[in-house]
Amino acid sequence: MADCIFCKIAAGEIPSHKVYEDETCIAILDVCPVAKGHTLIIPKKHAENLFALSEEEASEIMKRVHHVAGQLKERLHPDGLNLVQNNGEAAGQTVMHFHMHAIPRFANDDVKINWHMPQADQEVLSALCKEITA
Amino acid sequence: MADCIFCKIAAGEIPSHKVYEDETCIAILDVCPVAKGHTLIIPKKHAENLFALSEEEASEIMKRVHHVAGQLKERLHPDGLNLVQNNGEAAGQTVMHFHMHAIPRFANDDVKINWHMPQADQEVLSALCKEITA
Repeated sequence: MADCIFCKIAAGEIPSHKVYEDETCIAILDVCPVAKGHTLIIPKKHAENLFALSEEEASEIMKRVHHVAGQLKERLHPDGLNLVQNNGEAAGQTVMHFHMHAIPRFANDDVKINWHMPQADQEVLSALCKEITA
Repeated sequence: MADCIFCKIAAGEIPSHKVYEDETCIAILDVCPVAKGHTLIIPKKHAENLFALSEEEASEIMKRVHHVAGQLKERLHPDGLNLVQNNGEAAGQTVMHFHMHAIPRFANDDVKINWHMPQADQEVLSALCKEITA
């Protein structure tokens, strides 16, 4: 897609720090990392977000995510790892081409992904469950 | 697995707010939601984390994640949606049974998943890329 930075990176028109590539995906280091080894797994075919992918495409990308996460674990020996995938500006998506973040985590790092929330009211959850499944 | 709360929920031994179920996965509302409709997609078969899943299992779970995310979008009309999957205590994993968070996002909500980081030094990234791929 014209003017899509990830399409250009996938096509080799913009340089990147590639850690994995096959016919359908590339994985590159995020240039604005939140932690050492912060990597993006990107399908070569343009799709804006999760909702623009077919179930089959999402599932194929996940195989590469699984592989690259294993590669990061093996090479960098993190204490943990987050997968994060943002859809829409309201969710923090900044490049409008689907990508999965794989973020190696190290004990006592200062990555702000963890959250701690109080338990919700059971009746509120029941009503919501009906709203989603009705 | 004995003493695994998600195994017990999948087996129906502990009640939950189920929004989806098939042979391999359930999706339930998180009882400590960070946003309205915060849902967990959980394989019925116990696996501690992403690294304990086969590539095929991860890929099959992703089909359900894709489906449930679409369901949340359709029913709750969020402005965005995050997928988050935590591996290890250092990454914020609290239940040691693989689960993918699907978090509907609404404009100006106060969910703390977005991040903004400065660009990293290119030489640092090059060295790291070699470390991961060598």
